[in-house]
Amino acid sequence: MSDALTHGRKLLAELNPNLEAILAARYDAHLPGMAESLVEWAYGRHYAREGLDLRTRQLCTIAALTALGGQTTPQLKINIAHTRAAGASEAEILEVIWQMAVYGGMPAAINGLNAAIEVFEAA
Amino acid sequence: MSDALTHGRKLLAELNPNLEAILAARYDAHLPGMAESLVEWAYGRHYAREGLDLRTRQLCTIAALTALGGQTTPQLKINIAHTRAAGASEAEILEVIWQMAVYGGMPAAINGLNAAIEVFEAA
Amino acid sequence: MSDALTHGRKLLAELNPNLEAILAARYDAHLPGMAESLVEWAYGRHYAREGLDLRTRQLCTIAALTALGGQTTPQLKINIAHTRAAGASEAEILEVIWQMAVYGGMPAAINGLNAAIEVFEAA
Amino acid sequence: MSDALTHGRKLLAELNPNLEAILAARYDAHLPGMAESLVEWAYGRHYAREGLDLRTRQLCTIAALTALGGQTTPQLKINIAHTRAAGASEAEILEVIWQMAVYGGMPAAINGLNAAIEVFEAA
Amino acid sequence: MSDALTHGRKLLAELNPNLEAILAARYDAHLPGMAESLVEWAYGRHYAREGLDLRTRQLCTIAALTALGGQTTPQLKINIAHTRAAGASEAEILEVIWQMAVYGGMPAAINGLNAAIEVFEAA
Amino acid sequence: MSDALTHGRKLLAELNPNLEAILAARYDAHLPGMAESLVEWAYGRHYAREGLDLRTRQLCTIAALTALGGQTTPQLKINIAHTRAAGASEAEILEVIWQMAVYGGMPAAINGLNAAIEVFEAA
Repeated sequence: MSDALTHGRKLLAELNPNLEAILAARYDAHLPGMAESLVEWAYGRHYAREGLDLRTRQLCTIAALTALGGQTTPQLKINIAHTRAAGASEAEILEVIWQMAVYGGMPAAINGLNAAIEVFEAA
Repeated sequence: MSDALTHGRKLLAELNPNLEAILAARYDAHLPGMAESLVEWAYGRHYAREGLDLRTRQLCTIAALTALGGQTTPQLKINIAHTRAAGASEAEILEVIWQMAVYGGMPAAINGLNAAIEVFEAA
Repeated sequence: MSDALTHGRKLLAELNPNLEAILAARYDAHLPGMAESLVEWAYGRHYAREGLDLRTRQLCTIAALTALGGQTTPQLKINIAHTRAAGASEAEILEVIWQMAVYGGMPAAINGLNAAIEVFEAA
Repeated sequence: MSDALTHGRKLLAELNPNLEAILAARYDAHLPGMAESLVEWAYGRHYAREGLDLRTRQLCTIAALTALGGQTTPQLKINIAHTRAAGASEAEILEVIWQMAVYGGMPAAINGLNAAIEVFEAA
Repeated sequence: MSDALTHGRKLLAELNPNLEAILAARYDAHLPGMAESLVEWAYGRHYAREGLDLRTRQLCTIAALTALGGQTTPQLKINIAHTRAAGASEAEILEVIWQMAVYGGMPAAINGLNAAIEVFEAA
Repeated sequence: MSDALTHGRKLLAELNPNLEAILAARYDAHLPGMAESLVEWAYGRHYAREGLDLRTRQLCTIAALTALGGQTTPQLKINIAHTRAAGASEAEILEVIWQMAVYGGMPAAINGLNAAIEVFEAA
């Protein structure tokens, strides 16, 4: 097992303990090794890096997924939950999403707000 | 003068005092009011809002501009300077850009790293 | 109240009189000032500008939202209604959308046609 | 009838014999000539060209539609069926989609996998 | 020769009489038939359609190319010239580009303005 | 050293033996581990997978980078070289790029053709 995979799993224990198992159950029969590869890369090779705190990393992910547009709504919703788990408030998440109107345009920001409100109302 | 314009100008005094004058000199003969409108909207109506500190707002902008791809390189470079002025380190900016490989793909992240390295080497 | 906000509200009285109230009811408890800010920026600072008639402005919005892809379907549908209110025919709107196959690709154009047909059939 | 239209229709007889009729039934009352134009352009002027086999062409379409993001899901699903008809296996299609995590980002790849799994489970 | 090709060539005689020859000289040795195919599709199957005047069609193209971002700058510049040839003023073109700040974000609009100013200053 | 890193390095020995060293020289002082991480992820976890031949994988990458637009030109050029090294002809690469006019729009396809012609003329 690579160091990156170890670090990624340790981080996910904090953010979303079931994520790797959920991914493996859904995708690994189709694509052997997909879940492990995602954890190693996204969490082990990026979120677990030193040099920036996890809360800021997660807010930056919210920014990017909002600016990229509504096609990433499922991933935006999961990352809103991760961002709450990393210590950011609902208000901070909404501020980041609304700021994206400047960079990704008004439709992207409004679609992001809708996703966040759905997550908060379901919590 | 709207309150938003006042707040936007006050914030730019900290981040980039000449920005409005530069925009006005370049664009206002073509588009009357463009510079004022940009300051009111982007800085007065977004960056000057309460609820999130300026350093985190700027790092989120770095994330979005990187994920949106190399077409936004001029704006990414200006915002890297603003993000330094808001208190983030070079290392933190690079971490945000590299994390975008997960969301915007490897080309977007590498193009973002190249922009940042150019800004840092020119500073 | 800024001049831009006044102009934006006056224009929306023609296009969609309830829009600001609908936005305020949905978003302002989450993001204070969001509805006013959107009206000031999008309608006061853009659509209310001189130099181009409203009907052409709206057809250009249809073009952009189609080319940007299906992620902007909710905004495309609202703007199809605004474009009808600004005096364009159903046929003109369909022509603009189909032309976008050249610039945004066939999937974007087809998704745009589907959105328009849904709006027209519901009218 | 142009040569390109003839070639496009001949190719579609192999991939999806009802496509032109389906398009004509849905769109031609709104946009005269749309179905014929799409067949001439996409199938006659591209897929029917010499120089690359149809199976590789279809896998390249899967790659592009995945990287362009979830907004193209309806077109991705239709092209997954065409790609199967052109001789590619389910496993090959999944490999192409997953590879797009490198270029279009993880959300695009995961949304593409979900579309493929839905098509395969419905077959 | 298809009807669409005939119509496309007739329209280009008005907008940009050398375009097909320039495309053929650059691309046809690499891709036989490319120039003819582009004229047939973009100009014969889209711009030459009835139902919308050419000036409005061209302004809609300006809108889309701006919103799609700076990656389309070469095509934006060519279409700014075509839009002038179709009867739109410099001021109208700038209004369309600036409006795109609402839908494609501020970087896309500013990159579009820069392209237009370059074209106007070179004219 | 992870298995994925080993497999990725083995594959790059065939496609582009100096790539990891070039990346390390440019980026690793800024972002420790970047080069290794890219090789592990892109080449070890994707290109080295079984289930699809390398030539087809590379042509699919050409398709995606073209459709994503001109912002990825540097990566498109590198991958055109890799695709030649994996056994595809210049003509096959051009066919893939031109086909992308259907999915990513005409500007994306033309920008891709220009990149390919530059690579071929420099070879």
